[in-house]
Formats: sequence, C-alpha cells, structure tokens
Amino acid sequence: MNEPTSDLLRELDAILAERRGQCPESSYVASLYAKGVGGIARKVGEEATETIIAAMSNRRDELVKETADLWFHSLVLLASAGLDSRDVLAELARRQGISGHDEKRARKANKPDE
Amino acid sequence: MNEPTSDLLRELDAILAERRGQCPESSYVASLYAKGVGGIARKVGEEATETIIAAMSNRRDELVKETADLWFHSLVLLASAGLDSRDVLAELARRQGISGHDEKRARKANKPDE
Amino acid sequence: MNEPTSDLLRELDAILAERRGQCPESSYVASLYAKGVGGIARKVGEEATETIIAAMSNRRDELVKETADLWFHSLVLLASAGLDSRDVLAELARRQGISGHDEKRARKANKPDE
Amino acid sequence: MNEPTSDLLRELDAILAERRGQCPESSYVASLYAKGVGGIARKVGEEATETIIAAMSNRRDELVKETADLWFHSLVLLASAGLDSRDVLAELARRQGISGHDEKRARKANKPDE
Repeated sequence: MNEPTSDLLRELDAILAERRGQCPESSYVASLYAKGVGGIARKVGEEATETIIAAMSNRRDELVKETADLWFHSLVLLASAGLDSRDVLAELARRQGISGHDEKRARKANKPDE
Repeated sequence: MNEPTSDLLRELDAILAERRGQCPESSYVASLYAKGVGGIARKVGEEATETIIAAMSNRRDELVKETADLWFHSLVLLASAGLDSRDVLAELARRQGISGHDEKRARKANKPDE
Repeated sequence: MNEPTSDLLRELDAILAERRGQCPESSYVASLYAKGVGGIARKVGEEATETIIAAMSNRRDELVKETADLWFHSLVLLASAGLDSRDVLAELARRQGISGHDEKRARKANKPDE
Repeated sequence: MNEPTSDLLRELDAILAERRGQCPESSYVASLYAKGVGGIARKVGEEATETIIAAMSNRRDELVKETADLWFHSLVLLASAGLDSRDVLAELARRQGISGHDEKRARKANKPDE
C-alpha cells in the first residue's frame, strides 16, 4: 500500500523537534525558529490567506499545496511551543468522542464488516 | 496503545464526505457546506487568526484547540472541493521525499535500531 | 459639498478615545476594549478575511462594507494602544514624501491648473 | 498646521487610479495590479497578520507601520474594483449617522464651543 499515513505526521514532528536549537543557516525550519513565535505565526497567517484565495479561485491543486503549507507551518508553531501533531489529533479525537454517534456512523461507512 | 493515529483523519474524511448534500439543519458541518466555499473559507481565516493570537499569548492549551479548529475547518474546505486529508499528506510526503536526506535523518532519530 | 472628509476619521478617533475605560456594557466599542488586545486583533483578522472573500467574490458592495469594518476595527486596535488615525496617515504621508516624484504626478493629475 | 489630512487619502486614490493599466514594471502598485485580485488580496491578508502580530507584541511603532501597510493595500484592492477611499469613508459616515447620538457626543468632545 502506497498511501501516506499518519506516520508522516510523526516523522515531521521528529524533524521539527530535532531542528530546534540548530543554527538558523542549517535549514529553513531552523531559520523559522530563529524568527521566534511572531515570525512563525506570520507564516501561518500567510498560508491561511493563500489557502483561502486558492479555494475562492477554485484551484484544487493550489488548495492542496497551500493547505499542506498551512499544516506544515502550524506544526512548526506547535513545535516552537514544545507541542506536536499528537496534541492536535488528540484534541480532534476528543471532539469526535463527544459526538460518539457520529464516529460510529463514520466507522460504519469505512469498515462495513464491523 | 491509546494514542491517536492518522485513522482519525480518515474518519474525519469519511464524516465530512458523508455530510455533503445533507440538509443544513442536520449538523454543523452540513450548515457549513450550505454557506458555500466563501463561508467555509471565512472559518479557516478566523481559526488561523485565533491560532496566531493563542501562540502570541503563550497559551499552549488554546494553541492546541485553535490548531485543531484550523485543521478541522481546512478539512471541510478540502471536502467541499472533493478532496481530503490524503491529498494533503501526499503533498507533505512528496516534499519530504524531495529532501530525502532530511527524512533519513528523521527516521534515524526515531528508530535508532534500523 | 457632501462628500465625507478626513474629519470623519478624527471624529472616530474622538469616539474611540472617549470610550476607553467605559463599562463594557455601554457600547460595542467598550465591549471590544474589555476583551483586550487579543480580542480586538481577532476582529481585525476576521474583517480582513471577509474583505478578501468579498474581493474574490467580485461583490463590490460587500468589499466596501468589509473594508469599512476592517478600517474601523484597526482604529480600535490603534486606540487600545493610545494611537489614532493621524499616526497612520502620517506614516502614509511620509512614504508619499519618499517618492516625491509620484506625489507630484498625482497632484498634477488632480489639480491641472497648478 | 502640519498634520496629515484626508487629502492624503484622495492623493493616494489618484495615484492608485492613475497606475491601473500601466506596465507592471513601472511601479510597485502596477506590479500588484498585474497579479490580479488574488495577488492584491494576498497582500491584504499578509498585512493584517502583521498588524495583529505587532499589536500582540506591544510594538507601537510596528503597529502604526503595519496598519499603514494594511490600509494602503486595501486601497489598492478597492482601486482594482474601481472603488476608492471615499466609498469606505461614506460607509463609515453612514454608520455614524445611524448612531447620531454617538456622533453628537464625539463632536461635543472635540469642539466644546459649539
């Protein structure tokens, strides 16, 4: 199976954690950390704007790319606060848990054999 | 193991796909679809703003919650265009692939026995 | 002459200055101040998003209204820091001064008799 | 009196109107027009983000500069739709008119002799 999995998010978490404290010149991510929270937050705002504009322009390819940029930079923002993708996924899971009925229906849609 | 996995993103994809075309009163997500791309994009902009403000305020709990909101609404925006989390993860994976050296280092950091 | 002038911005400045420190229930602006910088900044982000969406939707009436909202809430943000429209106009004037050639051309275009 | 007036906004309107249709290489504004509504809207989103971050950082000088950038680029966005600062000021005036009591109080605060 060649489809991307959440292992990818964990790999990104590992890369982002590793690059904290590295010299700014060593990588793009390290240069972002060097700019501080404001500099990283600025990128999140820019990518959100571009995501919105891609969606409004009905450009599907760009929508995917800009959303990837948005998620990536929000992972950097999390990492700069010592957080990672697991925190976000746990929060999303918690909300799904609240609406257990919904989750059940979703499971059923995905895995009809259960 | 009780940690959330990417299966969660696939569950969300399934829920979001299922709710397209349902009547707006049936759920929050259905009401968002009814507002059209502009209405969903607006939520993405709002959540991005709140993510930025949470980060600038050094409120870690809020940063997690707002990022979850941001990812959730960007999934709705993708779903409204017939796309889902796999498209974003594939794009992120592609970029990691480009910087194969980086990925290798990350793997090594994670799984030292390999 | 019935066209709005910059006196309007000064009137808004006066209103916004007056409402600082008033009880939150007394007016919308006072309730915004009570939310602090983060609460006001959030409104600026929301109105910017709506301005962008109005522009992308080619809705001219909405573009005017959302831009008015954006300017208004940015005046509240300035006022919460003890600043007002004169500070912004002075900055814009300073930049025009830098490109004096441009300003000259603009004056010429407006007032051909000079 | 050396304080900037609303004539400045009218000067900016004139400059922005003049540059529509000029070749993109001739000026920054002409290069913005060449990018289309999406390109200009993107700048509005970026400047809004930077305004928010300046406010959250308690950097007053930057807040003034970023707000000036935000207003300037929103004027370009208006100009690209054939609108200008008068449309925004008229909308703000209309709203003040609605709350005439407020306006009266503001006038009184400014001009006690009336």
